[in-house]
Amino acid sequence: MIVDVSKKILIVGLGLLGGSYARVLKRFGFHISAITKEQSSIEYALNEQIINEGSTEPDKKMIGEADLVIFALYPHIFVEWIEQNQHLLKSGAIITDVTGVKRSIVYKIQDILRDDVEFIAAHPMAGREVSGVENSTDKMFAGANYIVTPTAKNTPEAINTCLELGRLLGFSNVTTLSPEEHDEMIGFLSQLTHCIAITLMTCNDKENMEKFTGDSFRDLTRIARINDQMWSELFVANKDALLEQMDLFIDKFNELKTMLKTEDIDGMRDMMRHSTKRRALFDKK
Amino acid sequence: MIVDVSKKILIVGLGLLGGSYARVLKRFGFHISAITKEQSSIEYALNEQIINEGSTEPDKKMIGEADLVIFALYPHIFVEWIEQNQHLLKSGAIITDVTGVKRSIVYKIQDILRDDVEFIAAHPMAGREVSGVENSTDKMFAGANYIVTPTAKNTPEAINTCLELGRLLGFSNVTTLSPEEHDEMIGFLSQLTHCIAITLMTCNDKENMEKFTGDSFRDLTRIARINDQMWSELFVANKDALLEQMDLFIDKFNELKTMLKTEDIDGMRDMMRHSTKRRALFDKK
Repeated sequence: MIVDVSKKILIVGLGLLGGSYARVLKRFGFHISAITKEQSSIEYALNEQIINEGSTEPDKKMIGEADLVIFALYPHIFVEWIEQNQHLLKSGAIITDVTGVKRSIVYKIQDILRDDVEFIAAHPMAGREVSGVENSTDKMFAGANYIVTPTAKNTPEAINTCLELGRLLGFSNVTTLSPEEHDEMIGFLSQLTHCIAITLMTCNDKENMEKFTGDSFRDLTRIARINDQMWSELFVANKDALLEQMDLFIDKFNELKTMLKTEDIDGMRDMMRHSTKRRALFDKK
Repeated sequence: MIVDVSKKILIVGLGLLGGSYARVLKRFGFHISAITKEQSSIEYALNEQIINEGSTEPDKKMIGEADLVIFALYPHIFVEWIEQNQHLLKSGAIITDVTGVKRSIVYKIQDILRDDVEFIAAHPMAGREVSGVENSTDKMFAGANYIVTPTAKNTPEAINTCLELGRLLGFSNVTTLSPEEHDEMIGFLSQLTHCIAITLMTCNDKENMEKFTGDSFRDLTRIARINDQMWSELFVANKDALLEQMDLFIDKFNELKTMLKTEDIDGMRDMMRHSTKRRALFDKK
């Protein structure tokens, strides 16, 4: 479906991600409409010619005409939106999202959604440390992962449409995972990583440390500058998987602490060699 | 003393750091000699014209003629060297080092050292993920910190000589701390940071994670590629200070875990705002 540029795409939530989607998709010739809460975002996007039309209200015509609807909202707002406005969706429409956690959102949306509309979930693993449509860019997706998380309720057509959307957007790796696999992976690679960064940044408030900071500390705390509203919601939405990853980390950290306490040099060197070897796998290809 | 280029400088240990020191100091016109274990390192340095002479043995003449001796060795080898060879040092010589921990080395060396030779300790906070004189460079010190750690045994003359050495080498920030302050700072900013990186890198060996890795995880694990011999020795040499920092981290991490478990969104958001605010202090100026 998606390659047919006569189809209409609606983006709900025109922030950094929604705006970046619009920027890329508009170029292909799709008709892009947007619903978002700030009039200023719509005006900016119209001026930039990255949308054809926009509204701050759930506009009946825009919603009723869209063949593909992309939700770029906080999880709880996404669920509320569907509850309140799904009766306006076109029969046969496909809807997708950008939510960073999957189990807690995918099954809920699929459960409450009308039978003649299909939700196929996706997680574009891209972001910047800034927000808002004004910071949107068509360069954020190169080199990044786009993960589609189908369930038994999804049709091959919708899954393929969503995979194709990821490729059109310019993601380098477009793939599928189950919602469960996705949440475990994201719990480890992204959420645990953010937990560690904010902990390191707040565990010692001694003054003047910044005078001696080198690249190592800066690297480990770059993401300690964090959107508190979004990340606290995402943490809770993936609570059990994230707690599991936090426990794995604490157990290993305590192992290291015990080795240091007992001056078990051989043990520490084994761990460091394991670390060095495993890190090589994660180099940028 | 140091600005007088008629003085002779001996570098013991011609690796990445020792070689980089030689590279910069030779340009000023100092006579540079080097003692190091590999003949190939000496040949390389002679070819590159970054030393005037070199030996793989504790050469009596080189040691006896040096006005300033810079030790770029592992801590335990530094102590052994002093025990075995200090009788060869010139009376009135100043010796300094590059060791990354201070309390465990400074007092020991000052205790065993002859009265007519002065040890003033320093920590050049610079490095690369590669080693050896072949990777030495004169560009490693710009933007970095050089910390001199005097004790009550040091003279103002030796302290000033060491500070001046740091400035000659091109360090952007040349300053003094007590050995105790230094070790607390390094325990937090550098050693704890490395402990976290190697723990994150080894706490979950699930396959295929690298396929989904983004910049956040890569940033937090860049330093997980680690020299196991050097870092295990440095960890043990700063054991109590590092254990203290590890405990601060674990306590804060457990606080976060409890907040997640109880879905204390307000508490998590407070921590994230604290983190965001404090991180701003650590931006590169």
